[in-house]
Amino acid sequence: MTATHGTLTIGVDIGGTKVSAGVVDRHGRIASRTRRDTPHRSTAPSVVEDAIVSVIDELLAGPEGGGVGAVGIGAAGFVSADGSHVVFAPHLSWRDEPLRASLARRVDLPITVDNDANGALWAEHRFGAARSTSHAVMITLGTGIGGAVLVDGRLMRGRWGIAGEFGHMQVVPAGLRCECGNRGCWEQYSSGNALVREARSLVAARSPLATDLLARAGGDPANLSGPMITEAARAGDRTSTELLAEVGTWLGVGMANLAAALDPQVFVVGGGVSAAGDLLLDPAREAFARQLTGRGYRPQAEIVVATLGPEAGLIGAAALAESALAGSGPEGHPA
Amino acid sequence: MTATHGTLTIGVDIGGTKVSAGVVDRHGRIASRTRRDTPHRSTAPSVVEDAIVSVIDELLAGPEGGGVGAVGIGAAGFVSADGSHVVFAPHLSWRDEPLRASLARRVDLPITVDNDANGALWAEHRFGAARSTSHAVMITLGTGIGGAVLVDGRLMRGRWGIAGEFGHMQVVPAGLRCECGNRGCWEQYSSGNALVREARSLVAARSPLATDLLARAGGDPANLSGPMITEAARAGDRTSTELLAEVGTWLGVGMANLAAALDPQVFVVGGGVSAAGDLLLDPAREAFARQLTGRGYRPQAEIVVATLGPEAGLIGAAALAESALAGSGPEGHPA
Repeated sequence: MTATHGTLTIGVDIGGTKVSAGVVDRHGRIASRTRRDTPHRSTAPSVVEDAIVSVIDELLAGPEGGGVGAVGIGAAGFVSADGSHVVFAPHLSWRDEPLRASLARRVDLPITVDNDANGALWAEHRFGAARSTSHAVMITLGTGIGGAVLVDGRLMRGRWGIAGEFGHMQVVPAGLRCECGNRGCWEQYSSGNALVREARSLVAARSPLATDLLARAGGDPANLSGPMITEAARAGDRTSTELLAEVGTWLGVGMANLAAALDPQVFVVGGGVSAAGDLLLDPAREAFARQLTGRGYRPQAEIVVATLGPEAGLIGAAALAESALAGSGPEGHPA
Repeated sequence: MTATHGTLTIGVDIGGTKVSAGVVDRHGRIASRTRRDTPHRSTAPSVVEDAIVSVIDELLAGPEGGGVGAVGIGAAGFVSADGSHVVFAPHLSWRDEPLRASLARRVDLPITVDNDANGALWAEHRFGAARSTSHAVMITLGTGIGGAVLVDGRLMRGRWGIAGEFGHMQVVPAGLRCECGNRGCWEQYSSGNALVREARSLVAARSPLATDLLARAGGDPANLSGPMITEAARAGDRTSTELLAEVGTWLGVGMANLAAALDPQVFVVGGGVSAAGDLLLDPAREAFARQLTGRGYRPQAEIVVATLGPEAGLIGAAALAESALAGSGPEGHPA
């Protein structure tokens, strides 16, 4: 037993493709980590549980295991307001799954379950870009858009825990079809998927503007990826810069809508696409400033990139567990 | 001095056209009332102050005056998060006006200042349609759209007090021009102004569908008003029913967007247009149910009409003052 006994927590981030986990200290530093592939959504919920328990057991058996006092789970899905159930997870097999109780039977530590974007925002609030404010909005730009809201220093979960699903706010009537079943959802215009879709269509059309991207993709549009486009933009490819600017402009328009409703002090932009930095955020800031209602007559929110990077979900899940353990949680989720 | 000394409050609702005020008891009942025309926005801020002080003095000199313990002001504008300033009010001359301090010099009672939609929601939460929930969204459909959000039983004001400006969320890219300076704002499609604009254009086009409305307007489209359209719809005019349904459909689309972001238990729809009742709300409910992301996999918010009617603003302003006085305010606005 060490001096840190009980003050470390395990964070588990369950994404569409992988389960990442780590032992995290009170300052948000990852002491050790591990990962598994996420079982395919056609498998039974218990298979995903097995993967979660397996990473937890591995970390508990490791050198920092004795110091772990709680476990936090972050999932890409709707988590019930009391943290007991995963109500719906598009990329997993869970439908109203009592995850916390199921895990509690197999793990002998307090367990917190939350939405992954909530975790990311909580981590940014405790250790990152939203440290100095109590009013922040998190936007994670990955395949889609994840979101979370900090109000008066607390996570806003909504009545049923499903707040922050910004990606499915309609920005274009009768617009592009979304996986959620609707048309014109924001994430169809501002996300990694949107970026790659537009790049592929440009390459597939054999546009002379797409020469650089075509070469990078080895002649096959299917090979194009978000990081490839960002890399091309960084290297000076004007078309890639424009593609990122288009995603950024829609990002800014959507953020202006959110500012009208939520009036945050800062927007923290995370997720894979945020690696493009100002290539994404400068056009976003410009569109935001042009679109914000009451501009000129009100203070204007800052738009910054997340500081904890791709591990914000893991660190956030751990930080939520730690806050719950310390009784200083973002709100009364029972641990 | 009576037994109720100090437990009554005065509520003052400052709208674009009139200043309504009343003495209100702890149960939200109006004991007496008065009103003035709102001074034109070209006049100095002090003229509006004079009107406010005048209604307060009149009520204090009346039979219930001795029982009044505090004054609440609700204004159609951006009120700073600490309740001290009216940051911006499109229909008034106020720009960063220190209203609370100005009134405190002239009224010898604790004064609370808030946005009118916040007041309306607080009144509905304490006495009306949102009584049984801690997670509600208020939509006031008047000339434009006003909004407010109740999160965990507290009003969500945002960092600078400007949250809830739903009417200026863009729902149509490059859409209709809005007074706020943008295009495609929600209130250009769902509001009293939108309803009347569409009816007028139909009548002006001499559409055979507009025969009933044309007659009601005495042959002049400029005479058309929202209540006239609602009345025609009630009397069976199919065109008026369709016009209300169009506003209702846009209302439902916008509420589905808000549900994605805020996940409330109930939407309370108030303001003048809500007098149309189910002629407005049934199409709204239908559009909402068709548009809600994750529908079928989540509980669905109720959509109800406000129960306090046009006096919700006045009662709400009084209730906010009463809550502040009792130390049970919606949050820490110093009185």
